[in-house]
Amino acid sequence: MAVSNPIAEFTDTPLPAEAYARFRAVVQPRVHREVVALDAALGRYLAVDVFAPVALPEFSRSAVDGFAVRASDLTRASAQSPGVLALVGESSMGRAPSVVVKPGTAVGIHTGAMLPEGADAVAMVEWTEQRGSDRVAINRPVRSGDNKIAAGEDVRQGELLLRAGRRLRPDDLGGLAAIGMVQVPVARRPVVAIISGGDEIVPAHVAPALGQVRDVNSGTLGALVEESGGVAWQLGVAPDDFQTFRGMAEQALEGAELVIVSGGSSVGSRDVTRAAVDTFGQPGVIVHGVAVRPGKPTLLAVVRGHPFFGLPGNPVSAIATFRLFVRPTLLRYLGVEEPSGCLPLTARLTSAIPPSGGREDYVQVRLFERNGEALAEPVLGKSNLIFTVVRADGYVRVPVERAGLATGELVRVWQY
Amino acid sequence: MAVSNPIAEFTDTPLPAEAYARFRAVVQPRVHREVVALDAALGRYLAVDVFAPVALPEFSRSAVDGFAVRASDLTRASAQSPGVLALVGESSMGRAPSVVVKPGTAVGIHTGAMLPEGADAVAMVEWTEQRGSDRVAINRPVRSGDNKIAAGEDVRQGELLLRAGRRLRPDDLGGLAAIGMVQVPVARRPVVAIISGGDEIVPAHVAPALGQVRDVNSGTLGALVEESGGVAWQLGVAPDDFQTFRGMAEQALEGAELVIVSGGSSVGSRDVTRAAVDTFGQPGVIVHGVAVRPGKPTLLAVVRGHPFFGLPGNPVSAIATFRLFVRPTLLRYLGVEEPSGCLPLTARLTSAIPPSGGREDYVQVRLFERNGEALAEPVLGKSNLIFTVVRADGYVRVPVERAGLATGELVRVWQY
Repeated sequence: MAVSNPIAEFTDTPLPAEAYARFRAVVQPRVHREVVALDAALGRYLAVDVFAPVALPEFSRSAVDGFAVRASDLTRASAQSPGVLALVGESSMGRAPSVVVKPGTAVGIHTGAMLPEGADAVAMVEWTEQRGSDRVAINRPVRSGDNKIAAGEDVRQGELLLRAGRRLRPDDLGGLAAIGMVQVPVARRPVVAIISGGDEIVPAHVAPALGQVRDVNSGTLGALVEESGGVAWQLGVAPDDFQTFRGMAEQALEGAELVIVSGGSSVGSRDVTRAAVDTFGQPGVIVHGVAVRPGKPTLLAVVRGHPFFGLPGNPVSAIATFRLFVRPTLLRYLGVEEPSGCLPLTARLTSAIPPSGGREDYVQVRLFERNGEALAEPVLGKSNLIFTVVRADGYVRVPVERAGLATGELVRVWQY
Repeated sequence: MAVSNPIAEFTDTPLPAEAYARFRAVVQPRVHREVVALDAALGRYLAVDVFAPVALPEFSRSAVDGFAVRASDLTRASAQSPGVLALVGESSMGRAPSVVVKPGTAVGIHTGAMLPEGADAVAMVEWTEQRGSDRVAINRPVRSGDNKIAAGEDVRQGELLLRAGRRLRPDDLGGLAAIGMVQVPVARRPVVAIISGGDEIVPAHVAPALGQVRDVNSGTLGALVEESGGVAWQLGVAPDDFQTFRGMAEQALEGAELVIVSGGSSVGSRDVTRAAVDTFGQPGVIVHGVAVRPGKPTLLAVVRGHPFFGLPGNPVSAIATFRLFVRPTLLRYLGVEEPSGCLPLTARLTSAIPPSGGREDYVQVRLFERNGEALAEPVLGKSNLIFTVVRADGYVRVPVERAGLATGELVRVWQY
């Protein structure tokens, strides 16, 4: 009977931060660039710093509909004693006005039109009254700069607008359009090979015989890769056979920048992964075994210059360790050295989280609101139950120095 | 001079919730289905309720490496007085074991393998000691159910797993794989036509002459449409000319399910949009003018059964009103009647937000942390400055009944 003792299996199990730091130090990613059309750039990672080629707006504009004026003509205007100016023309949309605002005159203007020479403010139409075709009365005082958008008020020429490594949002695309950058240098998506290991695993489209289970991890990990900016390359299910597995790993290293193997849940396929990695040379395995729940049997290696991840076979563990180790590594291939992302939500625990026995603990929670307060309800369940994640809205991290968490404690929740 | 008075322009300006409710009542979306492969389903909206065709797991499994036993043999086992059982075989991965666990016997088992008949628990290998090839000593008491994942522990047969309208996450794809649903019925992405209006607007790839500005909104709105699950159909820039604009609107209505026009910032192009909509018949304009800042001149119409949005030309206003009115409408075409999404973050304002004068106010904020507290710094700026959004991390809603917000108040921030 070949049941080995997992206590002896991992002699050194660092906490996740220490494990990642050791691994990170030996991974030297290269960011490859490509250029995409602006309308294909949403969610892509910018590969260059972007500077403003011009100031924005490029010329002073009116922020309202009204009359371009010289404020000095109207410092004492009021409803009782309006300032009456000669109407000398109009500033048309989309053209530089030829008319000049001299003392005692005004020019009609619409929101967004260019301010004529001489004008330093705009009187809002609401506080004016036209008198015939050639005069306008203004019922409020006007100060210099009122209702004027100054040239350069949004951005100054040469200003750094967006940094390399930024994940492009809808408004960023608007900003790039504003400066005419209609083709955008972005990081090429790294290819991530995915292998599911284990004699008990059948592809998801196959009806499992008794004792077999469908491959949950290939689909989950592929989607996590896509969500993180990579391209998923599905290599399928590997049996717990050294030669076959090693051949698949060779293929993966040939075509991918990163390789993920999610071990079958058995010791057997973990052994196969480790043995295969050990044949590929230096530096090889950096970390094998992490003080985290779920995710203890995680293997972090570097093979032929490629990050090579052996994730646990249990789906919940595979997801948790993907977030801890694969995602930040993948982001470095996209030029992101310090992942930012959303801040976590603060919520109150509705029930206690039991101690994890010397490991950093990641617990699924369901979120809801009561009386304006955010509540987090732990979704407990064994780490091979994929629907414990599906039923959750986010997760909580319990530091190793805390022996569990109590009902009513405030926790930080990272939302899915 | 054709500067009309905007005070007279909108006689009825409901608050956003009331405006949306009036509009929603006359929009009758149809959800069209299509079927996609599981690995193309990330981020798509599920078009059917999904029920479990089988229980998961389908058979009882071991949660650990160890020995399948009958707990009643080991109720008093201890290190001093271990329970010694006859080792009668092994449960191989991926196969139904032929061996049966009779009283006084044990069967070797790996994590994930099927529990043999007769066994009701698994003794972890850490607390066992093999004695020769045919006996095993167990040093701890075992209770029925220990380290066993029962059939149906994750999901029961027939259980509702995922509801129609759910936006599919990576773990959902894993769940669908677990039940063998490798092709997924999802809502077809609705086509959303986008027109930018205004004589001052030039396409983003054109260098603007003095007085002209580049089209910021087409790119921004297209990305917001894609992010919200639709397909953006870019029709380009419309001049402030009734016939041309009406022709473009006709084309849009012919090919799209929803139409967005972002008006030039001038009254002129707003007038053209309104006049064109009025020629298309009933019900036509539902709301014109909303008590919101930014976004007052928003127009909500239904034309030939299609939602037709006239958004303000200022980019910041266009983004804010897209989120308020277009996004929830678009989501109804994807089967989502009650948008859920992430809960907002609670943060402390670092400076005051001035009163908005009787309108509901949406203010950009930058988020950061200090001493473990989330802080929100308002990014003030006129609503035509796209980079005020680019510089922000989220937004705050100020209800109309509040006259601004004070420094130090706790606010809820919706993160981008």
